[in-house]
Amino acid sequence: MPPFTKEEYQARIKKTKERITDAGIDVLVVSDPANMNYLTGYDGWSFYVPQVVIVSTEATDPLWVGRGMDAKGAMHTTFLGAENIFGYPDRYVQSVERHPMDFVADVIHDRGWGKRSIGVEMDAYYFSARGYETLKKNLPQAKFKDGNLLVSWVRIIKSEQEIEYMKQAGKIVERVMQTALDSVAPGVRECDAVAEIYRAQIRGTDAFGGDYPAIVPMMPSGEKTATPHLTWTDAPYGNEIAVNLELAACRNRYHSPLARTMYIGAHPPAKLTDTADIVVEGMHAALDAIKPGVLCEQVEEVWRKVIARAGLEKESRIGYSMGLNYPPDWGEHTASLRPGDKTALQPNMTFHMILGMWMDDWGFECSESFRVTETGCETFADFPRKLFVKNG
Amino acid sequence: MPPFTKEEYQARIKKTKERITDAGIDVLVVSDPANMNYLTGYDGWSFYVPQVVIVSTEATDPLWVGRGMDAKGAMHTTFLGAENIFGYPDRYVQSVERHPMDFVADVIHDRGWGKRSIGVEMDAYYFSARGYETLKKNLPQAKFKDGNLLVSWVRIIKSEQEIEYMKQAGKIVERVMQTALDSVAPGVRECDAVAEIYRAQIRGTDAFGGDYPAIVPMMPSGEKTATPHLTWTDAPYGNEIAVNLELAACRNRYHSPLARTMYIGAHPPAKLTDTADIVVEGMHAALDAIKPGVLCEQVEEVWRKVIARAGLEKESRIGYSMGLNYPPDWGEHTASLRPGDKTALQPNMTFHMILGMWMDDWGFECSESFRVTETGCETFADFPRKLFVKNG
Repeated sequence: MPPFTKEEYQARIKKTKERITDAGIDVLVVSDPANMNYLTGYDGWSFYVPQVVIVSTEATDPLWVGRGMDAKGAMHTTFLGAENIFGYPDRYVQSVERHPMDFVADVIHDRGWGKRSIGVEMDAYYFSARGYETLKKNLPQAKFKDGNLLVSWVRIIKSEQEIEYMKQAGKIVERVMQTALDSVAPGVRECDAVAEIYRAQIRGTDAFGGDYPAIVPMMPSGEKTATPHLTWTDAPYGNEIAVNLELAACRNRYHSPLARTMYIGAHPPAKLTDTADIVVEGMHAALDAIKPGVLCEQVEEVWRKVIARAGLEKESRIGYSMGLNYPPDWGEHTASLRPGDKTALQPNMTFHMILGMWMDDWGFECSESFRVTETGCETFADFPRKLFVKNG
Repeated sequence: MPPFTKEEYQARIKKTKERITDAGIDVLVVSDPANMNYLTGYDGWSFYVPQVVIVSTEATDPLWVGRGMDAKGAMHTTFLGAENIFGYPDRYVQSVERHPMDFVADVIHDRGWGKRSIGVEMDAYYFSARGYETLKKNLPQAKFKDGNLLVSWVRIIKSEQEIEYMKQAGKIVERVMQTALDSVAPGVRECDAVAEIYRAQIRGTDAFGGDYPAIVPMMPSGEKTATPHLTWTDAPYGNEIAVNLELAACRNRYHSPLARTMYIGAHPPAKLTDTADIVVEGMHAALDAIKPGVLCEQVEEVWRKVIARAGLEKESRIGYSMGLNYPPDWGEHTASLRPGDKTALQPNMTFHMILGMWMDDWGFECSESFRVTETGCETFADFPRKLFVKNG
């Protein structure tokens, strides 16, 4: 059964219909797996083939359209009735002649929506250029509009139940980070430390288990700490090196990421300890600045002024809205904490603030996942903010 | 350093240039992360933002274009010189005004290739409809062609070193499957069994560690075994139920998937044991049919005739080419073992043959990953083919 009440899904669908109406869209074809889950509960690792949820202002419930063998997965995980679940035959899969969007277009046409204004998520994961061309070719009388991020913007404010799952993920990620600090040591193979981290992510706590995060552990070590998105090797950790730990936990597809940097050895360089100090000070200042009504860019400005005192700059954004998601990203692609983003913070918006300083051949990271409260913010994990030095 | 010699990457690039020339393409924009890795060695979890490798018939080495913070990751993981690595500023990331493909178009234009025939991977993961529209808008004098799967078809025949990595993954996946059979038991939470499986995937063996597979463990239990792509919950396993185990191991991004079904309890239903017997017989027959020159569809036909004797049918394909990959799929989207696929088998093609029977409210799966040899085939893992019955 889905992790939310049918009423909660219905409220999400109602808000989505209001948004698409405002955008002049009659029928929204939702390809983003997180948006599909948000509207129906659908949860399966089947997004490697095209699949959609279709929201029409003329239909009460959405339609789910996916591969035939996954239709039963939709029965198991969504609140939808069988009459709203459509499986396409396997001959549409990875074929040169046919595309699953041919079938999706047929479903739209058969419902009498072939001449409507049809929204598609132009920049969503798993909605390909060919998929778009195929829809247009099959529905020549439809008017296509960009419905990118329409549902994602509905997702930006979380319900109490969503916040609860993110808090649970926050409890799990505390264990995950502690496992990382305990496991990484000189002479230990990187893969063996990561194995323990994965185990902690999925075990969760005695009260609730873990789901797979949308991003794998990112743990560059040594000189590779100068870049954020490398994973791991099977070489043993050396001594007198730093290791970045960008980790997460996930609960019912809701995330709490958490990043820290550790140093293995007795002699962390002064540039690293100094940077850690100023980054943590900047984090405290930025978190203190958060409350309803403050703009995203204002939060970044507070941070920027703190690190400027130390002569530091950070070109990249310092955070983004996140929550429910699937690989390859836990971010929602809506609001970012960066110059020019004038999104006003509201209670139960949820962000990952990640302060990553990636320098020539070294780096430092510290992050928190939090919700905006009525008066400030609340982090999902409770974990010391500092450079962890482990004297191997 | 990349896991292959520079000579091997150069041979791949040469083959790619021959293919694009045959296709009338001058410049191929490669978005698929597996194809990017194949041509350059690039390996990082950064495909959640647009990034490409550009192969031009007029340039010796490809260009890597990605997010600024990942350019150093390209320095660390590819054989490319710094002059061929381009990082775009962070203001292009998830912006309404700008798109990373604006920057990619600038790179193409600056190289003097703005009027060339430009191939794009129309159905690749992570090449969005908006990305395509953006390229077209910025390069109005270019002629766009579909270069989908061009590099993937080069990938279909593996080198000895690629085969070696797949054999290593095969050794790991034996341990992974045994861990699953040991861990799943009545009263054990599904997440706790999966945690041990993840740990085995990443630890690998004493000789070589594991990388993250492109697909997470898919382990539906009970009635959910009727559908393949569900993951796990934190409920304890019951007794007298089946559990499907579609697992994998990965080594330097090369996969060996392996699927089995286990039954917990003393009384597996006759329909399950009967189906297991005929599926395993069909697998042996299909594997025996494999040798160079045989067509993909002929392998499927052998299988189909065996199960027809038991009155069974399977609508979906029984296998596909696979090897190097990233989430969301380890499959290569080229050859499939299914009716109509006239690809002739050649030595060192590598497939995942997955015989999944998904019935009303139950199912059975058995799979093997193998390479085509000079005279037949060789599986990467050595694991009994049967229904595993574990009397809890």
